[in-house]
Amino acid sequence: MFDILKNKNYKKVYIMTSKQIVLTGDRPTGPLHLGHYVGSLENRIKLQKTHRQYIMIADVQALTDNYEHPQKVHDNVLQVALDYLAVGIDPQESTIFIQSMIPEIAELTIFYLNLVTLNRLKRNPTVKTEIQNKQFGESIPAGFLMYPVSQAADITIVKAALVPVGEDQLPMIEQTNEIVRTFNRLYKTDCLVEVEALIPKMARLPGTDGQSKMGKSLGNAIYLSDSADTVQKKVYSMYTDPHHLKVTDPGTVEGNTVFTYLDVFDSRVDEVAQLKEQYRRGGLGDMVLKKRLVEVLENFLNPIRERRAHYAQDPQAVMDMLLAGTQKTRHVAAQTMQEVKQVMCLNYK
Amino acid sequence: MFDILKNKNYKKVYIMTSKQIVLTGDRPTGPLHLGHYVGSLENRIKLQKTHRQYIMIADVQALTDNYEHPQKVHDNVLQVALDYLAVGIDPQESTIFIQSMIPEIAELTIFYLNLVTLNRLKRNPTVKTEIQNKQFGESIPAGFLMYPVSQAADITIVKAALVPVGEDQLPMIEQTNEIVRTFNRLYKTDCLVEVEALIPKMARLPGTDGQSKMGKSLGNAIYLSDSADTVQKKVYSMYTDPHHLKVTDPGTVEGNTVFTYLDVFDSRVDEVAQLKEQYRRGGLGDMVLKKRLVEVLENFLNPIRERRAHYAQDPQAVMDMLLAGTQKTRHVAAQTMQEVKQVMCLNYK
Repeated sequence: MFDILKNKNYKKVYIMTSKQIVLTGDRPTGPLHLGHYVGSLENRIKLQKTHRQYIMIADVQALTDNYEHPQKVHDNVLQVALDYLAVGIDPQESTIFIQSMIPEIAELTIFYLNLVTLNRLKRNPTVKTEIQNKQFGESIPAGFLMYPVSQAADITIVKAALVPVGEDQLPMIEQTNEIVRTFNRLYKTDCLVEVEALIPKMARLPGTDGQSKMGKSLGNAIYLSDSADTVQKKVYSMYTDPHHLKVTDPGTVEGNTVFTYLDVFDSRVDEVAQLKEQYRRGGLGDMVLKKRLVEVLENFLNPIRERRAHYAQDPQAVMDMLLAGTQKTRHVAAQTMQEVKQVMCLNYK
Repeated sequence: MFDILKNKNYKKVYIMTSKQIVLTGDRPTGPLHLGHYVGSLENRIKLQKTHRQYIMIADVQALTDNYEHPQKVHDNVLQVALDYLAVGIDPQESTIFIQSMIPEIAELTIFYLNLVTLNRLKRNPTVKTEIQNKQFGESIPAGFLMYPVSQAADITIVKAALVPVGEDQLPMIEQTNEIVRTFNRLYKTDCLVEVEALIPKMARLPGTDGQSKMGKSLGNAIYLSDSADTVQKKVYSMYTDPHHLKVTDPGTVEGNTVFTYLDVFDSRVDEVAQLKEQYRRGGLGDMVLKKRLVEVLENFLNPIRERRAHYAQDPQAVMDMLLAGTQKTRHVAAQTMQEVKQVMCLNYK
C-alpha cells in the first residue's frame, strides 16, 4: 500500500505502509444509536489502531431514498460526525470524509454501470429485500436500484481491502468483487483491489421492543445522544417477558431484551448470571433489572454524551475536521481515478 | 446568461451575454462522414456565429456500448476533433470539450438517477429501439439503459437552451425536461434550464447503398477524411435505379442516391434539373452522373481534406485546443454544480 503525502516542496512523497485499508461509514439520515455502537462503532474504534480506516458519511447514498429531504441529510452529516467523535473515533487515526465531495466516486460509478447488467442489479438480494420493504415495485428510482454499484465505487476508490458489514450486506461485497474482476480483466490491470467482508461476531442488538433490529424507522432505538431522562423512559418501557406479570412469577431470560442489553453492557458478569438465575426462579421484578440497566447504560452513555456536548460547542471545528478528512480522501481518490483512466485510455494530455 | 472569467486579480468577473447556449456533440467511435456534415456539422458552423456553442466529444457515452474497446474510443477523440477543425468549426467560436474530463457530469447523473424510475427508463423509445438493435434483451448493461439520464446531465451542466437532434432523439429531450422540472420543483429552484430541440430541416442523407441512414456499421458511409480514390470508388458503386440497365433506358430520379447527393452538394441547380429530365427520358448513363458527383464531392471534400492534413501535422496542438475547451467548460460546469449542490443542501463549508 502507498500513502501519498506532499512535502513542503510540493513533490509527491510515497510512504510505505503495511496497514490494511478499511472502508466503513454511515448514511446521515439520523443520529446513531446503541445498535450502531455494538454492530460497528465499537469495532471501528479498534480498527483505527490496526488498520488504515476510512469512514464515509454517505450523503449521496442517503439521498437515493431521501432525495425529497435534502436538509435532513445535510443536518445529519454533522450529527453523525459528533457521534463518531463522542464514542472515540479519532480523526488522527481514522479518515472521516463526506461522500458527495469526492466526485471520483460518481465518475467510477458511471464506468462501473457499463460492467453490470440490469438483470444482475435486480438479482441483488439486498436490493430485492429493500425494494419489497419500501414497496417501490417497478417504479423504483434508478438511483436506488444501482446503489450497490455506487457502493462498489465507494469501496474501490480508496482501494479498501476490508469492509465491515452485516451478513445481509454480503451480496453487495460479492457484487463489488464481480465488478473488480471484470474491470481488471477487461482493462488488463490490477489497479482495483478485491475486498473482504468483516462480519461482526456479536449478534445484532435488538430494539427496545425486542424486535431483531434497532432502527430509527422502527422507533425502538436508544440514541447515543439521548438524554438521561429519555434513556430511562426507553428502558422502563422495554420489552421483557410478557408472561412475567408478578414479581413472584418465574420469568424467561432468553429473548428478554433487558437481559440481552445487560449481557452486552454490564461488565459485572457474575452478578448478571445470578440475576438471571433469580429471574428464572421467580422473585425478581422487571423494575429492579431495568433500574440496573439504566445505571449501566448511564455509565456507558454519560461520557459519550459529555464528549458530544463538548464537540457540539464548536460545530465549525467538527466541519473542518470533516473537510480535512475529505481532502485527504480526495488525494487517494484522485490517484485511483488516474490509474483507472489510464487503463481505460481516458488519459488525455 | 452569465459567463465566468477570471481577471488578473483572481476575482470573478461576470460578463452578460445574450447568446443562447447550444450543446451538441459526437460519440468518438469513428471518423465523421457526409451524413454528419449534412445532418449537423453544417448547422454547427452556422450556430457558432449566432450562439454560444458547446461541442462535446462524448467518450463516456461512447464507452456505454464500447467499454470493451477503450483504445478505439481514445483514438477517435482526436479524429473527431480533426474532422471538426477540417469542416470549419472554429475553437474560438465553439467550445469543444471532452466529456470524461468533466466529473460534474457524472455527479449530476448520479443525482438525476434518483429522479427517474426504472420503468421510465425502459419506456424511452430511443433506448427501446437501440436495445432491440443491439439485441441486449434483459442483459442490457445498466450504463446503456441510463444514458438518457447522463445526456440530461450533459445538457444541463452547461445550461443549454437548445440541442440540435434528429427526430428520433426527441424522447431524450423530453426525458431531460422531465428531470429539469422535477429537480427544480423538488429543490425549489430555477437553476436548471429546460431545453428545446432543434431539428434539421434537411432530411437525412442516405448511405451510398441508398439505405435511409449513413452509418459506420452499415458500411455505406463516405468519410470526410476519405481519400479521393476512396470517394471515387464509393461513388462508382453507389445505388442508383436498379431498373436503369442500358443508357437508353428511362431512369428514376426519386430514391436515386446519386441525384439525392447532387441535390445536396451540387450548386448548379439548373444543370441538375436538366440532368434529371434527361435521365427520366432515357439516354443518360449512371457513369456520367457519378463522374459529376465525384467532381462535386471532390470540390467539397478537397479543402476539408487539406485542412485536416494541416491540423493532423500537429496533433498536440489539437489536443491542447481540446484541453483548453474542456477547461473552459469545467468552469461553467463547476458553477452549475455549485448551484445544484447549494439547493440540494450539499454545500459543506
